[in-house]
Amino acid sequence: MSIMQRNELLQRLLADADLVTEALSARFSLVNSQGEGICPPVLKEAQDYSLMAGGKRIRPALVIEVCKMLGGDVKDALPLACAIEMIHTYSLIHDDLPCMDNDDLRRGKPTSHKAFGEATAILAGDGLLTDAFLLAASNPRAEVVQRAVRVLSQAAGSMGMVGGQVMDLEGETRRLSLDELLQLHAQKTGALICAAVQLGAIAAGEAEDSPAWKALTTYANRIGLAFQVVDDVLDVTADAALLGKSKGKDKAVNKTTFLTYYTVEEAQAYADRLTDEAVSAVASIDHEGYLQALAEYLAKRIY
Amino acid sequence: MSIMQRNELLQRLLADADLVTEALSARFSLVNSQGEGICPPVLKEAQDYSLMAGGKRIRPALVIEVCKMLGGDVKDALPLACAIEMIHTYSLIHDDLPCMDNDDLRRGKPTSHKAFGEATAILAGDGLLTDAFLLAASNPRAEVVQRAVRVLSQAAGSMGMVGGQVMDLEGETRRLSLDELLQLHAQKTGALICAAVQLGAIAAGEAEDSPAWKALTTYANRIGLAFQVVDDVLDVTADAALLGKSKGKDKAVNKTTFLTYYTVEEAQAYADRLTDEAVSAVASIDHEGYLQALAEYLAKRIY
Repeated sequence: MSIMQRNELLQRLLADADLVTEALSARFSLVNSQGEGICPPVLKEAQDYSLMAGGKRIRPALVIEVCKMLGGDVKDALPLACAIEMIHTYSLIHDDLPCMDNDDLRRGKPTSHKAFGEATAILAGDGLLTDAFLLAASNPRAEVVQRAVRVLSQAAGSMGMVGGQVMDLEGETRRLSLDELLQLHAQKTGALICAAVQLGAIAAGEAEDSPAWKALTTYANRIGLAFQVVDDVLDVTADAALLGKSKGKDKAVNKTTFLTYYTVEEAQAYADRLTDEAVSAVASIDHEGYLQALAEYLAKRIY
Repeated sequence: MSIMQRNELLQRLLADADLVTEALSARFSLVNSQGEGICPPVLKEAQDYSLMAGGKRIRPALVIEVCKMLGGDVKDALPLACAIEMIHTYSLIHDDLPCMDNDDLRRGKPTSHKAFGEATAILAGDGLLTDAFLLAASNPRAEVVQRAVRVLSQAAGSMGMVGGQVMDLEGETRRLSLDELLQLHAQKTGALICAAVQLGAIAAGEAEDSPAWKALTTYANRIGLAFQVVDDVLDVTADAALLGKSKGKDKAVNKTTFLTYYTVEEAQAYADRLTDEAVSAVASIDHEGYLQALAEYLAKRIY
């Protein structure tokens, strides 16, 4: 296995992000609309505001790169890549609401409800979530649609991301056990990262429970958790400017984090071990070293 | 075409509602869950609270009855019937929020955000919407899943119901034209009723654009609009107790309604004409007179 250099990884991420941004801009034309329905301009504006806010597009990049790695065609991956980014974006809009995390800023810009009001923000999110399934269903191969919708809805729904967000809110009112904390993150962020690699595999026609499918699922679970552990560490150690958000926020709201159970050194060692496990799981399919470089990048081991 | 009596219609509605309620209670076991995800108890409780609040289950009844009418099997219709009821229920939870219609009561019970708080209410809705697609994807026939997800997501998304809700909120701040009002209702309530008959047809394996498909679509469009026109009339004429909600609410918030453009008599005549058009569209397939009786019932012509 070769090791992809940092610059090459970043260039690849940017190229994939460009593809996704372009496809997202054209999202209403990607679906063969049959009805006479209209998306009101303010709704599209609010959705575009959040979709084009400069995210790193990690999840859609995973869909595209895994699809290519398994011999699939990028054009089959692209609608699924858009779908997962739309679901990620809706989750950020709803998480930022006053009754949830009550954030005024995201990526340096006013959050959706600050810019458009709460009602439009909630509906922008509802629309993005629903339209994501319309995009996922746009593939002409019925079997791809069936598998993709199952993976996406399971990962994003009550037994996935939404359930994780409910656990996260509970974690602000009582101390969670370590098992509960692991379950929370497996659902709140892990499930969608896992769905990303699986959607890439589905787009490439990879069978479920093949060795590659299992390896990718392990990889995604490990990098998702490692990312969260590092995030908790950075919340207490990093420079606020570098972090792009206020420091010490978790402690201020008395949130259960990995630092409730581990020292900073232990947590960093845990994240390193998870990253190593992720990388070895996919060693036999990661010919370019892309997945390794991405795992190291997300665990902040390369800058 | 025979005419179904009021009692027979009501009995049929109750029987279908029972089927749907039972299937909704078992919704997490209907899907072949592969992950290790958990739906947190409070999330399930909040979802059940709204799902079991005693709605008439008109949309799922349409899925089931249309499927049977076209020679399909109820067991194929049931997951799709549940999916559409879950989407309808999520839309009510979000519509009731303080930043939207700000309703404290629905069907005589505290609204979801009053009973569980705003954050849980929003997430209960998000989860119901997402899980609806998981149910829709549970059918073993990939082509049914592909068609059902397309119809559902188009009807519920930004170019459907969510777009309609945005238009509805706009209608509180400025006077809508009659065309805008028609578009609003076509999307806010019409699209999901239309999806209900189409899902029934899809479950029965009916081809798109067959005469039956077109007839059912016309029927659904007409009864959806007639129902809304009658609703606007009742808001000014009906007894508050009978209505189950406060009277004159539309006028109080200066909302554009059909009575902005029609007198009560004109509006009633319009609803009657729409109901007649609905009934004649499906005359050749409505052998039991079920669709006719339902149309009359929704237009409040039979009590």
